Amino acid sequence: MKNNFEFSALYTDLYELTMCQAYFFSNKSKDKVCFDYFFRNNPFNGGYVVFAGLSDFLDLLNDFKFSEDNIEYLKSNGFKEQFLSYLRNFKFRGKIYAFNEGEIIFPDEPVIRVEGNIIECQLIETLLLNIINFESLIATKTSRIAYAAKGKTIVDFGLRRAQGFGGLQATKAAFIGGVAGTSNTLAGYLYNIPVKGTHAHSWVQSFDSEYDAFMNFVQNWPENSILLIDTYDTINSGLPAAIKVAKELERIDKRVLGVRLDSGDFAYLSKKVRKILDDNGLHYIKIVVSNQLDEYTIQSLNNQNAPIDMFGVGTRLITAYDQPALDGVYKLSSINNVPKIKISDNMEKVNNPGIKKVRRYFDDEGKFFIDGILLQEENIIKVLRHSFISYKKTETGKRKYENLLKLCHDNGKRLFNCNPVSEISEYRRKRFSQLREEHKRFYNPHIYRVGLSKKLYKLKERLIRTYKS
Amino acid sequence: MKNNFEFSALYTDLYELTMCQAYFFSNKSKDKVCFDYFFRNNPFNGGYVVFAGLSDFLDLLNDFKFSEDNIEYLKSNGFKEQFLSYLRNFKFRGKIYAFNEGEIIFPDEPVIRVEGNIIECQLIETLLLNIINFESLIATKTSRIAYAAKGKTIVDFGLRRAQGFGGLQATKAAFIGGVAGTSNTLAGYLYNIPVKGTHAHSWVQSFDSEYDAFMNFVQNWPENSILLIDTYDTINSGLPAAIKVAKELERIDKRVLGVRLDSGDFAYLSKKVRKILDDNGLHYIKIVVSNQLDEYTIQSLNNQNAPIDMFGVGTRLITAYDQPALDGVYKLSSINNVPKIKISDNMEKVNNPGIKKVRRYFDDEGKFFIDGILLQEENIIKVLRHSFISYKKTETGKRKYENLLKLCHDNGKRLFNCNPVSEISEYRRKRFSQLREEHKRFYNPHIYRVGLSKKLYKLKERLIRTYKS
Repeated sequence: MKNNFEFSALYTDLYELTMCQAYFFSNKSKDKVCFDYFFRNNPFNGGYVVFAGLSDFLDLLNDFKFSEDNIEYLKSNGFKEQFLSYLRNFKFRGKIYAFNEGEIIFPDEPVIRVEGNIIECQLIETLLLNIINFESLIATKTSRIAYAAKGKTIVDFGLRRAQGFGGLQATKAAFIGGVAGTSNTLAGYLYNIPVKGTHAHSWVQSFDSEYDAFMNFVQNWPENSILLIDTYDTINSGLPAAIKVAKELERIDKRVLGVRLDSGDFAYLSKKVRKILDDNGLHYIKIVVSNQLDEYTIQSLNNQNAPIDMFGVGTRLITAYDQPALDGVYKLSSINNVPKIKISDNMEKVNNPGIKKVRRYFDDEGKFFIDGILLQEENIIKVLRHSFISYKKTETGKRKYENLLKLCHDNGKRLFNCNPVSEISEYRRKRFSQLREEHKRFYNPHIYRVGLSKKLYKLKERLIRTYKS
Repeated sequence: MKNNFEFSALYTDLYELTMCQAYFFSNKSKDKVCFDYFFRNNPFNGGYVVFAGLSDFLDLLNDFKFSEDNIEYLKSNGFKEQFLSYLRNFKFRGKIYAFNEGEIIFPDEPVIRVEGNIIECQLIETLLLNIINFESLIATKTSRIAYAAKGKTIVDFGLRRAQGFGGLQATKAAFIGGVAGTSNTLAGYLYNIPVKGTHAHSWVQSFDSEYDAFMNFVQNWPENSILLIDTYDTINSGLPAAIKVAKELERIDKRVLGVRLDSGDFAYLSKKVRKILDDNGLHYIKIVVSNQLDEYTIQSLNNQNAPIDMFGVGTRLITAYDQPALDGVYKLSSINNVPKIKISDNMEKVNNPGIKKVRRYFDDEGKFFIDGILLQEENIIKVLRHSFISYKKTETGKRKYENLLKLCHDNGKRLFNCNPVSEISEYRRKRFSQLREEHKRFYNPHIYRVGLSKKLYKLKERLIRTYKS
C-alpha cells in the first residue's frame, strides 16, 4: 500500500532519468561536471532574495534513493535493467558548495555549485530547484512583510490556504524570513518553531453569548487569552463582552492579553478599539489583526499610526501571493574542466561559464558594497565588470571581502549538522542589517551590484563568439 | 530522528487544538455539530471551480492520528493530561457528505458537509481546507488551460517551480483538471498518472555538436525522440541538426517524433519550423512548446493558428500563478440541530445556516440549469431565490435534478474505495461538457445561478434579525 507521500528519488522530472539512462549508455557516466544554481530576477519587484531551503535540501538528498518498488515502476516505464542496477545503488556522492542559509543573495550569483559525475549532478536537479526556489521565495516574502511591520510581531496563519504539503516548507521559510511563530503545529514540532493560536468564530458561535464564550476561553487558557471580537459586531457586541471579561478578571488579579480583529478596516477599527480599551483603563490589552495582510497593507497601517501590536499573516505570505514562484535555474557550467555556455537571444539569459566562486566586498561601515563572480582559480582582482556592458566597472580596491561559497556536502555526507532554524533566522537578521536601506524599498529599489572578474568576462565573450560563428 | 515530513494530526492550526481542549473542559465534547465547506468567489475571474482533493483528504483523514511523540510535544506546549488522553485515541468518527470529486461547483454551495461531535469536526478543519482549497484551485486552473488548448495535448512540467511538496497534490489535481501526463515521476508512481520527459539543454551541451547529441538521444530512446532545438540557435543550428538526424533515421525506417521549442516567440517560430519540416517532407514530426504558458498564451497561439501539437505547461499551472489560493472556508452551520450563523457587514460573507443539501437541476438538453441549496428536511420546492436579493427568483418546474451531496465517510471509514484518478478526470470531463459555454469564457463569464429555497431564505433572514437586535 502506497502512502500519501513517501519521499524517494522519484521526486524528479522524468527527463532527468531519461537523460541519465542515455548518459549511462553513451559512456558519459564518468564525465565530471559542474552545475550552478542561480536566479535571474528579484521577485516582487524587490531588491534582494533571502536564500533558504539548503538544510531541507541536504536532508532530502540523504533520502534521495530508489526503493525496489520505485525500480519496478521505472522498469514498467521502459528503463533498462543495466541502468536500473546502477540506480539501485544510487547515492549522490559529489560535492555541494553553497552560501550560508539565510544569506541575502542577488541575481546571477551561483548560490549553489554542484560538482560530481554527470549522472548524479543531473538527477538531483529537480529536487534542488523545487526546494530552494520555494523556500527562498517565501523567506523573501516574509522578510518584506517583517520589514514593513517595523519591529511589530508577525505570525504565520497560512496553513489552510497553503499549497498542499508545501505549507510545511513555507512555514519553515517564513520563520527564516522573520515570523515570530506559526499556527502550523506540525512545522512547530518538526522544526522547533514557536506555535501560536487561540480560537475561531466557531468557538464564539458555540455559546449563547460572546461573554460566555470569552469567559470560558479565558478560564481554559489564561496564558493564551486573545479574544476574537468580530463574530457578530466588533464595536457594539464583541468589544464590550471582552471588556466585561477583562474587568472581572482584574478582580482576581488576572488579565486578558489581547483582542483580535479578523474583518473590517483595521486603521479605523484599531484606533476605535484602542480608544475604548484605554478609556476603560485596559491599556495592557493588545490588538491583533488578521485578514489578507501583506507588506503593503501593513506598511499603510503603520503609516496611518494604527495602534496594532501583532499581525497574523496568512494567504499572501504562505503562497507569496503576488508572485508565487522564483525563477531559479540550474545550469551546466563545465564538463571535464571545459567551460560550457547556453546561448540565448536575450543576453541576460546567457549563463556564466566555468567553475566559479563568489566574493562579497564590504564598505567601511561593514555594509555590503558589491559582489563579484570570479573563476575559481582567480585570487587577486581589482575591478569588477557589469555582466555584459563592458564600460561599466567598479574598483574593489582594498576592501574587505568574504568568499560566500562553502563546501557543505561531500562523499555522500553533509559536512555540518543541521543548523537549527533559529540560527538560520538569526543569520538572516544579521545580514539583512548589512544591506543598505535603498535596496529594501518596495518601489523601485536601488539595484545591488554584482560584477564579473575580467577573466570571467573575457571567457564568456569568447564562448559566445565561438557558438555564434 | 524526525523525518522531513511525517504526516500526523499535528498537520493543523494550533487554534483547533486550543479550542478543542477548551470544548473538552467546557463539557461540550458531546455537542453534535455540522460544518460546511464552501468557497465564495470563482478564482481567475472565471465562472466555475473544479472540485478536487476529496480522495486525498479522506486518505489523510485515515492517518490523522497523534503519535506518542506528538502527544509529548503538545504537553510541552501547555496541553493537559486529561485532554491528551482523549487525543491519544482520537479518530474522526463523524459523517462526511461530499459532491463527487471532479464535479463542477459554484460559490456558496456546501460542497462538503461534516457532521459529528464538536471536537472531531473542529480538529479536521485545517487539513480539509489545506487539501481541498489547493487541489480544487489547480484542477480549475488546469481545466481552463485545457479548454484553451481545444483538444491539443497538455503536459505538466511544473515540479521545479511548484511550492515544495505541494507539487505532489498539484500534479494529481492537474490530471483531474485535464493534463494528459506529467514530468513529476513520484506523482506518476503514486497516482498512476502517465509520465513524460525527454532531455534538457544540458544533454545538448554535453556533446560537441547538436547532431551528436540528438543522434545519441534517439539511439537511446527511439520511442521517446522529442528533440530540444533551442540550445544555441533554433532555426540555424538546432532545427537543421534535428532534420539531419530524422533523414538518417528514415533510411533505417525509424522516425523522430518531435522537436521542442523552449524560448522565443512560439507563433512565429512554430510556423517557421513547421514550414521547414514540411519542405523537408517531415510532416510527421510534431512541434512541442514549453515556456511560461497559461490559458491566455495558449488561446492566443491557437487564434494565430500556430501549428503546435503539444503544450508543456509549468509554473503558471502548478502554482495557479495569477491567483495562487482559493478562498474556501469551513463554517459552523448547526449545533445540536439549532441553526447557526456568522454575521458580517458584507452580506456576501454571511453563511447559510442549518443542515443543508444541494440540488442541481438540468435543462432539456441535459445541461446544468440552476443549483439550489435547501434545508435537509425539504423535499418538494418550486422556486429558488437569490441568496440575498428577495425579488430574484427562478422556477424549477418539473425539471430533472440530482442531489449532489453523498455520504462518503462514516464510522471512521470511507464508504467507497479510492477512485482511480483517471475516473475522477473522466467524470470532470463529462460534467464540464454539461456546463454551458457562456460560463467557460475567460472574460466576463455568465454567472451560473445558485439559489436558496424559500425556507432556507426565511431562516437566514430570521437569524440575521435576531443577532442584529
